[in-house]
Amino acid sequence: MGYRHVLFAADFSDEALKVGERAKDIARQYGARLSAIHVVEDVNISLGGGYELLPVLPELPDKVLLRESRAALGQLAQKLKLENADLWVVNAPSTKEGIFGAVEDHQVDLIVVGSHGRHGLALLLGSTANAVLHGAPCDVLAVRI
Amino acid sequence: MGYRHVLFAADFSDEALKVGERAKDIARQYGARLSAIHVVEDVNISLGGGYELLPVLPELPDKVLLRESRAALGQLAQKLKLENADLWVVNAPSTKEGIFGAVEDHQVDLIVVGSHGRHGLALLLGSTANAVLHGAPCDVLAVRI
Repeated sequence: MGYRHVLFAADFSDEALKVGERAKDIARQYGARLSAIHVVEDVNISLGGGYELLPVLPELPDKVLLRESRAALGQLAQKLKLENADLWVVNAPSTKEGIFGAVEDHQVDLIVVGSHGRHGLALLLGSTANAVLHGAPCDVLAVRI
Repeated sequence: MGYRHVLFAADFSDEALKVGERAKDIARQYGARLSAIHVVEDVNISLGGGYELLPVLPELPDKVLLRESRAALGQLAQKLKLENADLWVVNAPSTKEGIFGAVEDHQVDLIVVGSHGRHGLALLLGSTANAVLHGAPCDVLAVRI
């Protein structure tokens, strides 16, 4: 009944390292595979009149975000020394959908995500933990940050 | 950074065994102490006119509930073979407050609680997992049931 595939749901906040350390530790305890995911939520560009403005953008914002996120996740994984972890940056309508998709596709049985304190910026992370908890297809470990 | 004191937040649903098994397993993995808690939420008796009706009650509902809960938690612990676990039945205004109180009093660093599916009765458990997650003073493992 032990965990076999742990998924670290990474944001790039100051606390990501703590959450990642916990994910790494629990995967080690169980001898489980470890993967890390960062979800880039779909950017909703309101262009008003139409698409004629698009060519002035050097690149679509989604693409830039995806590339930057891949770099940031790579750096985070390096800091955490996650040598054997798969790193996934995915684009999805919401963080929740992106994470759940990976859970289903890769037989994840534990998601590790940051929780939050009572105040401030952490609320944002909290609402992700919350969304992930609702209807999660597997166990969820919310790490207090 | 391993967990040292795991708290199994027990209800008496059909799924309590699954959640308890997980709590036991993770405590074993970490060599952590394991305790189990069941919170009896305060009963709000509306007596209308006053307290003159109280003497007809053979016992206060809270007391009956506490006694029955102690028996039920004992049985659950037996089924789970939690020989060394402390079992706590506490009375509190809410499940959340009861659990958090125990966390603070006993240096718990991981709460294990049932999560829920998408439908039905499980929603009740879900809302507890949810409440526990908000402002939890430590990590929370939500076990999918």
